[in-house]
Amino acid sequence: MEIKAPRGTADILPKDAKKWQYVENVIKGISNNYHYEEIRTPLFEHTEVFARGVGDSTDIVQKEMYTFEDRGGRSLTLRPEGTASVTRAFVQNKLYGEPNQPVKLYYFAQMFRYERPQQGRMRQLNQFGVEVLGSADPAVDAEVIDLAMTVYKTLGLTSLKLVINTLGDVESRTNHREALITHFTPYKEELCKDCQSRLEQNPMRVLDCKVDRDHPSMKTAPSILDYLNEESKEYFEQVKHYLDLMGIEYEVDSNLVRGLDYYNHTAFEIMSEAKGFGAITTLCGGGRYNGLVEELNGPATPGIGFGMGIERLLMALEAEDIELPLEAELDCYVVTLGEGSKEVAVKLVHELRQNGIQVDQDYQGRKVKAQFKAADRYKTKYVLVLGEDEIQKEVINVKEMATGEQVEVPLNQLINTMKEKILGGK
Amino acid sequence: MEIKAPRGTADILPKDAKKWQYVENVIKGISNNYHYEEIRTPLFEHTEVFARGVGDSTDIVQKEMYTFEDRGGRSLTLRPEGTASVTRAFVQNKLYGEPNQPVKLYYFAQMFRYERPQQGRMRQLNQFGVEVLGSADPAVDAEVIDLAMTVYKTLGLTSLKLVINTLGDVESRTNHREALITHFTPYKEELCKDCQSRLEQNPMRVLDCKVDRDHPSMKTAPSILDYLNEESKEYFEQVKHYLDLMGIEYEVDSNLVRGLDYYNHTAFEIMSEAKGFGAITTLCGGGRYNGLVEELNGPATPGIGFGMGIERLLMALEAEDIELPLEAELDCYVVTLGEGSKEVAVKLVHELRQNGIQVDQDYQGRKVKAQFKAADRYKTKYVLVLGEDEIQKEVINVKEMATGEQVEVPLNQLINTMKEKILGGK
Repeated sequence: MEIKAPRGTADILPKDAKKWQYVENVIKGISNNYHYEEIRTPLFEHTEVFARGVGDSTDIVQKEMYTFEDRGGRSLTLRPEGTASVTRAFVQNKLYGEPNQPVKLYYFAQMFRYERPQQGRMRQLNQFGVEVLGSADPAVDAEVIDLAMTVYKTLGLTSLKLVINTLGDVESRTNHREALITHFTPYKEELCKDCQSRLEQNPMRVLDCKVDRDHPSMKTAPSILDYLNEESKEYFEQVKHYLDLMGIEYEVDSNLVRGLDYYNHTAFEIMSEAKGFGAITTLCGGGRYNGLVEELNGPATPGIGFGMGIERLLMALEAEDIELPLEAELDCYVVTLGEGSKEVAVKLVHELRQNGIQVDQDYQGRKVKAQFKAADRYKTKYVLVLGEDEIQKEVINVKEMATGEQVEVPLNQLINTMKEKILGGK
Repeated sequence: MEIKAPRGTADILPKDAKKWQYVENVIKGISNNYHYEEIRTPLFEHTEVFARGVGDSTDIVQKEMYTFEDRGGRSLTLRPEGTASVTRAFVQNKLYGEPNQPVKLYYFAQMFRYERPQQGRMRQLNQFGVEVLGSADPAVDAEVIDLAMTVYKTLGLTSLKLVINTLGDVESRTNHREALITHFTPYKEELCKDCQSRLEQNPMRVLDCKVDRDHPSMKTAPSILDYLNEESKEYFEQVKHYLDLMGIEYEVDSNLVRGLDYYNHTAFEIMSEAKGFGAITTLCGGGRYNGLVEELNGPATPGIGFGMGIERLLMALEAEDIELPLEAELDCYVVTLGEGSKEVAVKLVHELRQNGIQVDQDYQGRKVKAQFKAADRYKTKYVLVLGEDEIQKEVINVKEMATGEQVEVPLNQLINTMKEKILGGK
């Protein structure tokens, strides 16, 4: 029997891990420039956190969660998305009491959703996300969108589409909700089962249904934009104005509804328009969720954030043929031949590493020629050759592979020589 | 009702996250110098991977795993340790077929063990670990130990104790096993319940029992060192010799037995001897596990690795009063006053960030004085003041907080000026 990783999960092997590291470092640098700080929350939460923080009526909570009882009988759930966990941590750790407001957080986290695996949809997926808690300034909405766009642009993506919408404040949503119920109820029997229950629980999400998207009633459905009160309209105008000031292009799509229950005001998605990207084009989704902190027993606190899939980001880079500038070289490789050379090599390799130099040696008992081949495969910059002659003379032969140039260096000067050659400029 | 993180888990908040990032970056740099590459495996595996890869008779598998059925009826288990998952990935992805051998891997991963939470023992814990697969060279054993010690020393720890042992090869272990059974059987009824079953399944682990450690039979128990065949003796001698060459001090403790079933030859632990570190002093444990790859249906392949707890590493740093050199400064903060300044600020902040400069601004509608206070709290290097006067003159006032020095900079030269000031040397 073959033992495999569970369905919908994947190993990230070294050659791919380098891409992940590169992308993560770029994102961390940008997050730092935007003055966001990292938070890490546990992989699982009490199930209630997601039932309340994502919403009982959502597909995620109803169908897609990894929920289990621990040995103490607690119902735990592997995190399906980031906002509820971060908000729980914000409340539990009383971050609303910190002098520095808003609290601007970012995270890298695995998410778990029991869905049918397909291209771009894994059961364990990785997200970068941000959450800004404590400010209701529309300039924050623009900053959050700007940050997401900057990540994609910095990595080289160009075929991007930013779609924004507003879901309005509570009053606007309530009025829109009633209009939606009035509009869709005559067609209720023609809609899918999910939409029939959505119509009762959260009718706005009918607009987002993939099954009913071509039903004639969709085209004539009341738009949230017609139900916004003055405050909500003004808020949305300001968000758009700030995006304009930053030179960020967007489309307004009044049917854009995020899948989670607690969104209000700004909602947005960023899509890849690259050819061959695949059917699921959403790279990033986010929005404002004033009210969520209260739902999780904290004081009234506005919030906004997004989640960005790393797997899809890598797919988009591939779809746009973008090569990341990855280093794939080894600084030094020690080649040994003859009795006693292995011992000297072990000591030298240890000392070089203590001095910050990247170096490896043979552990397979290979002959000299095969050791040189290994050095080649590793794209080694300097091969250090240690034979019986060299040991007797207390020297080592340093060969620069790019030029073929060789020098004999006294063993006791090797560290300084290699530091100079390799770390010279650093 | 208050909603909290599950028992035995903890949030890592921004001020602590900075420590984690620092420690992880140091470790990544060292791993790179030692020519190890990153691997990431899923958070959970089919339960069988751990039953076979950790060992049915271990406490981990018998008592401590988070095992659950997914919605498709598969038995899955949250990873309790790293070796089994990495070995499964090594086999599934046929890394044994790669030309570069041995395969030297490192990982950062959360582990999950359902134990009684206490200081230094969490249900969700974080480990850095390495696995070297494909070489039976004792110099690899020394390299792996060297790497772990280098991590601790580089971070500044000095109160460390390295304990090593050998468990011998299969023949030696089999002979020792029989001697242990003969020795302990007369006392069987006096030993704890766990040891009674260990005596049948894996008698070496009786030596490791915390309950029976003072039983008189422990002192007279046969030592593995007396049952080693020539090959195993020679192997251990070489490991010690290489450690000597590197100047790494160690103690040999023949009772050191690692908790997992598949260890053979070298076993080691690194302990903190810092005062006030707490009762659990093990920082890192590892050993050789030739045979594990076969157990997970791969070809015969030697392996060795270790797992190092990051929480305990941070505790040890604290116990030794080591302050990590963390940056806690903000490059720029834009202070705005008067009509129109916010708009200009939003655009400027966006542009500065696009140019790699760290900058923030007020999102709370604060007055000027409170904005300056915020800049102080963030330990801002440069405060950029934008008032109505400045906007009219198309300039901005740049104040260096350390010196109090102020200059007026034309708005269209701000990016270059700040790049020069902040990124100048980079």
